[in-house]
Amino acid sequence: MKKNKRIGALVDELTSNPGRLYDSKHFCEKFGIAKSSLSEDMKIVNEVLRENGSGHVESISGVGGGIRFIPGISEEKTAELQNALIEILSDSSRILGGGFLYTADIMYESHFVRDMAKVFAMRFSGLGADYVVTVETKGIPLAAQVAFLLNLPLVVIRREAMYSEGSTVSINYFSGSNQSIRKMSLAKRAVRQGTKAIVIDDFMKGGGSMVGVREILGEFDIETVGMGVALESREPIKKRVDGCLSILIIEEIDEEAGRIRISPSENL
Amino acid sequence: MKKNKRIGALVDELTSNPGRLYDSKHFCEKFGIAKSSLSEDMKIVNEVLRENGSGHVESISGVGGGIRFIPGISEEKTAELQNALIEILSDSSRILGGGFLYTADIMYESHFVRDMAKVFAMRFSGLGADYVVTVETKGIPLAAQVAFLLNLPLVVIRREAMYSEGSTVSINYFSGSNQSIRKMSLAKRAVRQGTKAIVIDDFMKGGGSMVGVREILGEFDIETVGMGVALESREPIKKRVDGCLSILIIEEIDEEAGRIRISPSENL
Repeated sequence: MKKNKRIGALVDELTSNPGRLYDSKHFCEKFGIAKSSLSEDMKIVNEVLRENGSGHVESISGVGGGIRFIPGISEEKTAELQNALIEILSDSSRILGGGFLYTADIMYESHFVRDMAKVFAMRFSGLGADYVVTVETKGIPLAAQVAFLLNLPLVVIRREAMYSEGSTVSINYFSGSNQSIRKMSLAKRAVRQGTKAIVIDDFMKGGGSMVGVREILGEFDIETVGMGVALESREPIKKRVDGCLSILIIEEIDEEAGRIRISPSENL
Repeated sequence: MKKNKRIGALVDELTSNPGRLYDSKHFCEKFGIAKSSLSEDMKIVNEVLRENGSGHVESISGVGGGIRFIPGISEEKTAELQNALIEILSDSSRILGGGFLYTADIMYESHFVRDMAKVFAMRFSGLGADYVVTVETKGIPLAAQVAFLLNLPLVVIRREAMYSEGSTVSINYFSGSNQSIRKMSLAKRAVRQGTKAIVIDDFMKGGGSMVGVREILGEFDIETVGMGVALESREPIKKRVDGCLSILIIEEIDEEAGRIRISPSENL
């Protein structure tokens, strides 16, 4: 296989399997080339991916080492993403009353989801997480994409214990957004005890839901090592959890004036 | 930029944006090359993608034409996917009683989801669909991935009308699996009237849920042009809908003997 086809095949294989560790032998044998040629190819692949703002290839030397693709997104593309979302979300017809905003279409739009997921995957790669966890429903596509990019299993906490999930652990927690007691339920066979998790959700207001997730994960002795939400409400300023990353901050929803103010998050 | 870097950059750009139509000018300008050189490059890119079993590049000539990546999966890789799933799902500890099988981990595992999505995207590309639709919860990652591969928005039908979805249309339908009347709810602003949809779900038994989805879509004058589920139950043989594709067929769950029989679907 010629060098330019090899470069194309390497880009395809690596970017289709983010986070997967490939033994260099795998590619040397596949292409019938020496390790030195593969190193040269990899240098070019890395240049291509970095220049495209798609991420980079990491080489881990020694026994158990290899090559893997770490997805990323450039600062420029992150700012473009934030600006595009701000423009779309600032449409006053999205105001639903009671301080709610219609955001489901954004949370289900593939390209927005993919780019938001890259922002989180880049920041949460290397934390040694075992799972990406979310609570149904609107954050599932985002969490699933983060899980794919980090090569981790997704875990979905349900609102109600479902028969098809087998035996579950449930908790009740106070949701400030809904001003009510809500329930979460996690299947016992979905997770292993004593592991680490990244929690992804679509929205955070006071942080009650995030506290609930940490609590139910705590029942399995699972440590929350990273938290990310697409949208965060500015109010209340004092959240019930610290250290949650967000893409955008909803500053104000003025129902009477039909005005929505959203800004890029400072914590990225 | 050298030819081999261009090939890498083209593979990265195209495979990251499946279904997106690029004007050839876009790449000619980006790389500073003539249309004839781009055609040569594209020939190589196409060879790489086909040989990797990742899909192919489609060139549409004339005004409004361009280049786009159509994802795919080879018959060999589809058979590998089916065999891997059959092995994992045949573990008798998955039997939950009442004819239920624990499948959530499979529906949330990135690589299985990605490959199943490719099977559906390949078959449903070219049907002119406007949306990929699913019912919460377990089918969401699969449907989201199909939507990404087809460059379409995802639409999630909820079990309960949520305040954050604005005004909704709801229906009641009979679920044979649960032997009960269940509810579905779709946000009015999630879809446009008179469009076409592909419906993706994790599981189909009698087809009651699929009938419900078609009915609620019908309320918006939306035609269902394709249906796909990951797992289909052999029984009942007579389904309430025709033409639904599946990846695997659950032939038998024998609770007493602890035996599960699953086979690759014949309809692929």
